[in-house]
Amino acid sequence: MIKVGIVGGTGYTGVELMRLLARHGGVKLQAITSRKEAGMPVAEMYPSLRGHVDIAFSTPTDAKLDECDVVFFATPNGIAMQEATTLLEAGVKVIDLAADFRIKDVAEWEKWYGMSHASPGLVAEAVYGLPEVNRDKIRTARLIANPGCYPTAVQLGFLPLIEAGVVDASSLIADSKSGVSGAGRKAEVHTLLCEAGDNFKAYGVGGHRHLPEIKQGLAAAAQAPVGLTFVPHLTPMIRGIHATLYAKLTKDVDVQALFEQRYANERFVDVMPAGSTPETRSVRGGNTCRIAVHRPQGGDTVVVLSVIDNLVKGAAGQAVQNMNLLFGLPEGQGLDIVPLLP
Amino acid sequence: MIKVGIVGGTGYTGVELMRLLARHGGVKLQAITSRKEAGMPVAEMYPSLRGHVDIAFSTPTDAKLDECDVVFFATPNGIAMQEATTLLEAGVKVIDLAADFRIKDVAEWEKWYGMSHASPGLVAEAVYGLPEVNRDKIRTARLIANPGCYPTAVQLGFLPLIEAGVVDASSLIADSKSGVSGAGRKAEVHTLLCEAGDNFKAYGVGGHRHLPEIKQGLAAAAQAPVGLTFVPHLTPMIRGIHATLYAKLTKDVDVQALFEQRYANERFVDVMPAGSTPETRSVRGGNTCRIAVHRPQGGDTVVVLSVIDNLVKGAAGQAVQNMNLLFGLPEGQGLDIVPLLP
Amino acid sequence: MIKVGIVGGTGYTGVELMRLLARHGGVKLQAITSRKEAGMPVAEMYPSLRGHVDIAFSTPTDAKLDECDVVFFATPNGIAMQEATTLLEAGVKVIDLAADFRIKDVAEWEKWYGMSHASPGLVAEAVYGLPEVNRDKIRTARLIANPGCYPTAVQLGFLPLIEAGVVDASSLIADSKSGVSGAGRKAEVHTLLCEAGDNFKAYGVGGHRHLPEIKQGLAAAAQAPVGLTFVPHLTPMIRGIHATLYAKLTKDVDVQALFEQRYANERFVDVMPAGSTPETRSVRGGNTCRIAVHRPQGGDTVVVLSVIDNLVKGAAGQAVQNMNLLFGLPEGQGLDIVPLLP
Amino acid sequence: MIKVGIVGGTGYTGVELMRLLARHGGVKLQAITSRKEAGMPVAEMYPSLRGHVDIAFSTPTDAKLDECDVVFFATPNGIAMQEATTLLEAGVKVIDLAADFRIKDVAEWEKWYGMSHASPGLVAEAVYGLPEVNRDKIRTARLIANPGCYPTAVQLGFLPLIEAGVVDASSLIADSKSGVSGAGRKAEVHTLLCEAGDNFKAYGVGGHRHLPEIKQGLAAAAQAPVGLTFVPHLTPMIRGIHATLYAKLTKDVDVQALFEQRYANERFVDVMPAGSTPETRSVRGGNTCRIAVHRPQGGDTVVVLSVIDNLVKGAAGQAVQNMNLLFGLPEGQGLDIVPLLP
Repeated sequence: MIKVGIVGGTGYTGVELMRLLARHGGVKLQAITSRKEAGMPVAEMYPSLRGHVDIAFSTPTDAKLDECDVVFFATPNGIAMQEATTLLEAGVKVIDLAADFRIKDVAEWEKWYGMSHASPGLVAEAVYGLPEVNRDKIRTARLIANPGCYPTAVQLGFLPLIEAGVVDASSLIADSKSGVSGAGRKAEVHTLLCEAGDNFKAYGVGGHRHLPEIKQGLAAAAQAPVGLTFVPHLTPMIRGIHATLYAKLTKDVDVQALFEQRYANERFVDVMPAGSTPETRSVRGGNTCRIAVHRPQGGDTVVVLSVIDNLVKGAAGQAVQNMNLLFGLPEGQGLDIVPLLP
Repeated sequence: MIKVGIVGGTGYTGVELMRLLARHGGVKLQAITSRKEAGMPVAEMYPSLRGHVDIAFSTPTDAKLDECDVVFFATPNGIAMQEATTLLEAGVKVIDLAADFRIKDVAEWEKWYGMSHASPGLVAEAVYGLPEVNRDKIRTARLIANPGCYPTAVQLGFLPLIEAGVVDASSLIADSKSGVSGAGRKAEVHTLLCEAGDNFKAYGVGGHRHLPEIKQGLAAAAQAPVGLTFVPHLTPMIRGIHATLYAKLTKDVDVQALFEQRYANERFVDVMPAGSTPETRSVRGGNTCRIAVHRPQGGDTVVVLSVIDNLVKGAAGQAVQNMNLLFGLPEGQGLDIVPLLP
Repeated sequence: MIKVGIVGGTGYTGVELMRLLARHGGVKLQAITSRKEAGMPVAEMYPSLRGHVDIAFSTPTDAKLDECDVVFFATPNGIAMQEATTLLEAGVKVIDLAADFRIKDVAEWEKWYGMSHASPGLVAEAVYGLPEVNRDKIRTARLIANPGCYPTAVQLGFLPLIEAGVVDASSLIADSKSGVSGAGRKAEVHTLLCEAGDNFKAYGVGGHRHLPEIKQGLAAAAQAPVGLTFVPHLTPMIRGIHATLYAKLTKDVDVQALFEQRYANERFVDVMPAGSTPETRSVRGGNTCRIAVHRPQGGDTVVVLSVIDNLVKGAAGQAVQNMNLLFGLPEGQGLDIVPLLP
Repeated sequence: MIKVGIVGGTGYTGVELMRLLARHGGVKLQAITSRKEAGMPVAEMYPSLRGHVDIAFSTPTDAKLDECDVVFFATPNGIAMQEATTLLEAGVKVIDLAADFRIKDVAEWEKWYGMSHASPGLVAEAVYGLPEVNRDKIRTARLIANPGCYPTAVQLGFLPLIEAGVVDASSLIADSKSGVSGAGRKAEVHTLLCEAGDNFKAYGVGGHRHLPEIKQGLAAAAQAPVGLTFVPHLTPMIRGIHATLYAKLTKDVDVQALFEQRYANERFVDVMPAGSTPETRSVRGGNTCRIAVHRPQGGDTVVVLSVIDNLVKGAAGQAVQNMNLLFGLPEGQGLDIVPLLP
């Protein structure tokens, strides 16, 4: 059994990791830390875990994370970059669900995240944990930068077009909608039910932290810089991201076939039949990204619809997928979940 | 007092018309028809109207609509085109909240709506009831084609850019999100709470009936055909449309000033301060269209955010605004409503 | 025009007061205070008020509340009791939407609210602002204790039975469900959309602050102490309270007639036809309490269903109703609102 | 592998059965019937099943249900009673998720369900499938009447009190709240998102079909008739039932200990610590009934809070639990699910 530790488990990615690990079958959850809640049984905060997870939150000291095989950071940005080195030196593999190691250009990262990077040396080493792009590198990595939720949905939607070089990569548009759980479990006014419920709005139009992450990934696929307008929106639901992507075709290709071929061997990317419109609930609780591709009125604008559960394929599920790769387990172990519908 | 009749008042635009007319002050609601519910007090179906509307649904015969000054059609598509002629000949003004008279090209209309037009002769006469464009024509009209909900939000958002000729009108994108009330009160599986709740999806990507209506309006403003990709989405809320509009600037203009000038005298269009992101709830129950305009990262893609309440400015409120214009009343009479927030 | 001030207007009762006062016609909103947001235009925080309220939040000093005719306290508990004396001495009438003056037994109040009362002398003077019970006293009062939301729905539902002495008042049950706005606009984890959405739970089963308030009112009607089990629940909606009330009949009376007679002249209490089940949305945004009364299977258990909008009849609307009474205006001025449905 | 058939799989209990059976490990889904959708792949109607269930709906004829080991009826009331005999005679075990075999008094059943019973002879044989009461009988049964959703939550909440004879069983109250999925996937106006969303109401106050079912179960436990007032409510969420139960204690017992002892060996009933308030989301997707018991202010009214997922412990999950018992499998096989939170 792989010995697992979680740092900062009181948020939604933490409880989601526990949901998945509790049924994984190949891991033992050794410790989950929370300075603030140390001593409280995990199942007291999250009654859904009663009968499934019987440990309590512990202090970082008590947690003995250096005795784990792998540690997940389900923390705010800026924590993993301070603590990863010690763990790595102790031979522990590290998967960061926050953004500390996602952006290769450290100066760019510091601009968007508003802090100095504590471990710029690790940034180069870290592998960006999108298995559909970096599977082989992930297998041999020590340190995984688990992708953001929007970046997962948007990149998986654009990649077949960009890799095949069939769209104008200088004017991509990603109109993206997220459920409220993407904002985490912090007490904030704008995510109260009475503020976010029965309401729809855009935010971060001038610039969102996931923009450089997406552009980095698409530029790597294009082997050239890309131009992207990225507008995120808050939609009154709990889980789910729906990315609606627009690009101009520069070649008249069969886009349906292009997507089907690109993802033919990808267990967690489901290219739906032509004409489909994927719903976010069709992936609720599951690790799948469902994609449909359209050419409205047969024109040269291609529209890609890409949905994920932001807490699963957009966070904890992809982290478990990466863990499976790191330890040579079947990639889908613990992730063979039927989404909850309705 | 203006004598008002409503045809087909059991749906959401019907109850919304009654909500507005009950407090208008210058009208008397004479009759509201429903073949199916004739005899049932309106307030029995809609308890929110108890104490405010005391008439019952009547049969078309009993309603004596030809004795009204104005008749609103809050009916499915295809009804007003059959009944308008008789009323117009009796000197009654007609406001159709359905789509029968919106598209000037009758063949185009027949293609999208899947039926033969019963009164093609009236199509030419009908005035498209978007007061911000056609105010003077509306004042002297007999027959108003009240705009669709998406077309209202999308046209008001694009018009300043198109009229000024500062964007490439051949590649416009309108990513639009609607609350579920836009689908009406018909019993259908896909709008059940358990289907549409906690869920987000696109629909009609291949072609939606509002596409030709929007293109017609924008082409008139551009004085040339336009290219538009229009993707509607269903969002799990009751009221509200949020249109996110994308266009390429062809001139480096001050877009904020452009919008403020265009709508300086428009009481029901609110151009928000630069940097704003309008929320749908900020117009819930009110007749205002709120707009914000952005140029992300200072680039040449302009992003317009346009929100309305689909049942008010997108339907019944705009219909009342048109009625006010038709009868020389103050344009905002009965529409001076503070939106309900939260 | 009555000069009005509001203390603490950043919460939901504050914005709701402004919504109602903006269309009242007989008042002028002089000032609204917020230490934290002083200087910010009200409409910047609440865009729904753009075009309707054009003042900014002010400091308590700048507000010159002593020059108002009436001041509403839309503050947390414990503020009005400190500031009311000064205003009353300056001849200003005071309406407290918090709980400071609701409980006549000061020791009891201090037990439930966990603080010492700063103005016990005013408690005796304050009139409990439930117009359906205390209308005449309200007309001549200086200081109004505006009822709580649950107490309004529960008392209006039980009063006809208690006043008529037809039920066993020693074993009343009030199973009450509230929308989330009852918890206010404070940033707290348990009212986040992701915590309260798609979820239902009881809370405060061991004892809720509204229990002594309800018991005080019912005991006055019964002229004897009452026994009440009060269980509040949080339901995933924004506005609305639904109280389901259970009592044992001790006399075989026509409960429908009893309710109709009791509220025959009450404009804001609507006794629905026998067999009805009032919906919370039927009062959304309006000041009405809708009630239906049942005797399931004709037995001796009477079930009363009582719904209000917690922010209107349960807070700001009732406060305006009280203001109208205080100043000799028509009781319903500014409150003739058709609820928003859907 | 147990060969399983499902009759009528297009509704929510059908898709939920498939979700559970797909991961069960001990069954093979042979056929799922739908006259209307015969030929359509199941995963086309329910994209959440893509990759998990690869069969299509079949006609009853093609389904060869008589070759199955067990057949679930996920049909409207009145179907299983017509088709069960043939299957039973072919040696197939039958689990009816509808109400056909739940009420032992056939005349009573016919009164509440408004039809003649087609197989009154089977009613006596059928075992009521509440394992916490009838486990041994279920193991040897041929025909299971799977309990209703409200009856499951209400009976599990009352049973410890009734069995111990510590409450007045003549005046029980069950104030029950259900998510909208309890109404099924039929297209009906009152369960549209725009009707049931952001709204709360009671229904069936005069009499609901689950009343006789609950009374039958409680009377068996009490070994005497019981008096029950049962008021169901519709709450704006998808899944979940919250029953708030009230009873008068006739003996001063330790109710917490009573509940803990009664359910000490029940894997799917979780008695929470004293003072808890179970949330419906804490069982979302799982087969657990969570219960908390209170005595407000230490009085003699006991309040029980009982929550289930109506589609799992209230329908499909309990049906699988019964299947496991019928075939000698571990009772929890396929049901060891961590609820989805948030």
